[in-house]
Amino acid sequence: MTSIDLNADLGESFGSLRMRNDAAMLDIVTSANIACGFHAGDSLQMSEVTELALKNNVAIGAHPGFNDRRGFGRRRLDNIPDKQLSADLIYQIGALQAIARAKGGQVSQIKLHGALANMVCEDFQLAQLCVRAIAAIDKSLAILVMPGTQLEKAASLEGCPLIREIYADRAYTEDATLVSRTDTGSMIDNPQLAADRMLDVLESGMITSVSGKRIEVRGDSICVHGDNPHAIEMAQTIRERLEKAGIRVEKFTALTEEVLTPGRQGL
Amino acid sequence: MTSIDLNADLGESFGSLRMRNDAAMLDIVTSANIACGFHAGDSLQMSEVTELALKNNVAIGAHPGFNDRRGFGRRRLDNIPDKQLSADLIYQIGALQAIARAKGGQVSQIKLHGALANMVCEDFQLAQLCVRAIAAIDKSLAILVMPGTQLEKAASLEGCPLIREIYADRAYTEDATLVSRTDTGSMIDNPQLAADRMLDVLESGMITSVSGKRIEVRGDSICVHGDNPHAIEMAQTIRERLEKAGIRVEKFTALTEEVLTPGRQGL
Amino acid sequence: MTSIDLNADLGESFGSLRMRNDAAMLDIVTSANIACGFHAGDSLQMSEVTELALKNNVAIGAHPGFNDRRGFGRRRLDNIPDKQLSADLIYQIGALQAIARAKGGQVSQIKLHGALANMVCEDFQLAQLCVRAIAAIDKSLAILVMPGTQLEKAASLEGCPLIREIYADRAYTEDATLVSRTDTGSMIDNPQLAADRMLDVLESGMITSVSGKRIEVRGDSICVHGDNPHAIEMAQTIRERLEKAGIRVEKFTALTEEVLTPGRQGL
Amino acid sequence: MTSIDLNADLGESFGSLRMRNDAAMLDIVTSANIACGFHAGDSLQMSEVTELALKNNVAIGAHPGFNDRRGFGRRRLDNIPDKQLSADLIYQIGALQAIARAKGGQVSQIKLHGALANMVCEDFQLAQLCVRAIAAIDKSLAILVMPGTQLEKAASLEGCPLIREIYADRAYTEDATLVSRTDTGSMIDNPQLAADRMLDVLESGMITSVSGKRIEVRGDSICVHGDNPHAIEMAQTIRERLEKAGIRVEKFTALTEEVLTPGRQGL
Repeated sequence: MTSIDLNADLGESFGSLRMRNDAAMLDIVTSANIACGFHAGDSLQMSEVTELALKNNVAIGAHPGFNDRRGFGRRRLDNIPDKQLSADLIYQIGALQAIARAKGGQVSQIKLHGALANMVCEDFQLAQLCVRAIAAIDKSLAILVMPGTQLEKAASLEGCPLIREIYADRAYTEDATLVSRTDTGSMIDNPQLAADRMLDVLESGMITSVSGKRIEVRGDSICVHGDNPHAIEMAQTIRERLEKAGIRVEKFTALTEEVLTPGRQGL
Repeated sequence: MTSIDLNADLGESFGSLRMRNDAAMLDIVTSANIACGFHAGDSLQMSEVTELALKNNVAIGAHPGFNDRRGFGRRRLDNIPDKQLSADLIYQIGALQAIARAKGGQVSQIKLHGALANMVCEDFQLAQLCVRAIAAIDKSLAILVMPGTQLEKAASLEGCPLIREIYADRAYTEDATLVSRTDTGSMIDNPQLAADRMLDVLESGMITSVSGKRIEVRGDSICVHGDNPHAIEMAQTIRERLEKAGIRVEKFTALTEEVLTPGRQGL
Repeated sequence: MTSIDLNADLGESFGSLRMRNDAAMLDIVTSANIACGFHAGDSLQMSEVTELALKNNVAIGAHPGFNDRRGFGRRRLDNIPDKQLSADLIYQIGALQAIARAKGGQVSQIKLHGALANMVCEDFQLAQLCVRAIAAIDKSLAILVMPGTQLEKAASLEGCPLIREIYADRAYTEDATLVSRTDTGSMIDNPQLAADRMLDVLESGMITSVSGKRIEVRGDSICVHGDNPHAIEMAQTIRERLEKAGIRVEKFTALTEEVLTPGRQGL
Repeated sequence: MTSIDLNADLGESFGSLRMRNDAAMLDIVTSANIACGFHAGDSLQMSEVTELALKNNVAIGAHPGFNDRRGFGRRRLDNIPDKQLSADLIYQIGALQAIARAKGGQVSQIKLHGALANMVCEDFQLAQLCVRAIAAIDKSLAILVMPGTQLEKAASLEGCPLIREIYADRAYTEDATLVSRTDTGSMIDNPQLAADRMLDVLESGMITSVSGKRIEVRGDSICVHGDNPHAIEMAQTIRERLEKAGIRVEKFTALTEEVLTPGRQGL
């Protein structure tokens, strides 16, 4: 393994209410998941983050979520009619595509947000609905997935390019799933520890689970969450550690075609 | 003149609140201006109207407006920063483009809505901002314009294809502008009279102004407003009258390239 | 039984999108359930309907619902935190109270809307949360309830005045619950039939269930739904039939205190 | 002068987007202007801030603004129909009144927000419309005003109790108006300097204008803006300085009736 993508959720401010420091994060990550105005962000944010991403050679990704600004897309809205959810996803992605196009760029990947992202890990039918909505726009759009989930399965079956994610700030179970946020020890808050773990994954293909057992964890992109106050520091620490170890940190669109081929087994 | 386009604003419902009968109108018109979720409509409406438009061979147009659902885009919001307005237009158009693409169609024209549409008739800088936002997405998108306005001028200068509109339900002044809605006699409510006037325009290139003087009025598309209760009847009456007189009613995308060339004088 | 209240949901328009004819309905009904700007309506609608209600001596009721304009409050949002739902109800009711007060009137009753109204029929804890939110504002606010539901139970326990509803346009099961909308014969669309049934209830205290069996149905107010196209005609027909039979149609606030006492058995 | 009120705008968060530290500010100020869900805040925020304000014996004020969340109420919406603006204000204030009532408190003062607050300084008719909307709800609601403005004039004429504000973080012109934010030296960022100036005002009734001239400035409440990053520090510094000098910092509702009498000259 000589290269890895680093992704973060960006563009989540709204009007005068500001989330984190997007500009600082865009100096570190190699691909950006940009909120599309439904759960967070708005057209102007999308435009500004897209412009900065292009300037920094950061891959532009759409980060669509439920049409639920008040709940920040984190509420499980489980009775939205299929046609509406599908239309909502296409609407959001298309909006960002036009914004990127108007600035000379393009959307290359999709990462679902919040409650919807959690739901498609478990629900194959919902995952398939989302994957098909994305593929209906453009079959070449890559989809970020948590390995082993229903979303990965649905995206593979549909033949969509997929980017497998590794989570820098989360503990893993022995089954290579994430330890629930409500359980003790679920979050890795220490930037040095997170960086050590990511280097370990990239060098050995293994991570130490919460129980202490070594498990296989592979992926194409490291997700740097921005929920914690030290998001910038953590992203920076991880990037420096990996680069010092000789690993190139670069956007996944720079990876070989082979890497992005759906259906392949791990890295 | 042997052919003309017939356009109407559609997809303006929201949730359970229904505007007019879109399905009936899509049986009559040849191009649809679809609301994009800011002043009216939503992703599901857009999806349903687009699907029906494709089925009926109706040209798909985006109908973006101010981000003002409560005011239905009819309030003059005159202090929106340029970058935000530009981003809002691109966002809305892109959303419909993806919806059309997902259904195997494409957006071919843009018609600005409400207060914004009125403002770009008078304000060249604003018109240019809107035209450039549209052209930044795709230079081949045609723009519906009222002849003689700043919007027509801006669109011509930018080299955008443009569709000149004739208004079926509105009285004209001697200067070929519309009589203000607040003036007596501004509206043509009678379907038969409207149909007579449109046939007159297409056969003679002239219309009788509100003062009785014959003036030159030419265009590529007849706008059938849906504000009045007899919208369907009026559209139907106009279409039948024109077809009986041997005029083909067909979407402007079927017109020759020459017709859509910007900068040409009248029809 | 010599008097009955007639209630309808009003003020559900938004901007240019119009629901039904509120003015015509306010000539017929004796109490109005006014949408409070979350699932439908807005401050201006509330103000206009309140003004007309006062002019027509119609009792003013708040009709709060989920914060879900797009879904018209008809989607079951089942994971809203208790504190938020409670705050949403209090917010909506308070808004209408101030509007009524500014016009010299007052809110006298509360009717929950849509999905929330359905959910409190079955879920005692949710019903109690809603009832307590209402009572926290003012213990004298009456609550419209479907007899036999968890809402009736919760409102009775809390000591709130309650108004039991009879549904003019719905068929009843043998258990005095409503036949599900999705079942055949659930709706009574015929105004004459609806009027016959309501007169029957008021004269005999009985109604003929969908199975043909006579069952006991009593109440303080007849709900005239506005979903069907003949809402005005139906309301008018019922009112005329009842008045011709010597029954006074008057707002429930005119009923004796005894009638409004919680905990009493039927009428 | 032995006592003064200290007010700040609070409850401006929305969903996951957080503004400043409301809890820390509620430990310092004596009256809170709570956003009412139109330009910022929502029912849950209002409920939480109200609860904390009551616990801390802080006066509860409504802080209504334009229905413009995206613009944070800072865009001059100058073509809203009078009836709508009036209804919007009443709606917002009423919502907070019910929330306060449900927690055993009450709204005692109103402070207009953002662009609307600026507009009523200059436009008497608009100021009168706002004042009358407030008075229509309750004539005893006090209105926070900048001395010498059209709002003060309109509130005095209407007979509303009024609270005159002094601005801790703003420079004054020789006319006792605020130096425009866009001019150099308009903001007082240094907490010590701001505290010195406030103590000066309270002891001498005078402040040093931007030109160096001493001018008369009096008021009932010091406004501590929260826009700057040191808002908490500034509020704390001012409070400590005043208290050390023997001035009681207490909510204006504790002031004598005489102080709140409209029409009086200065303090």
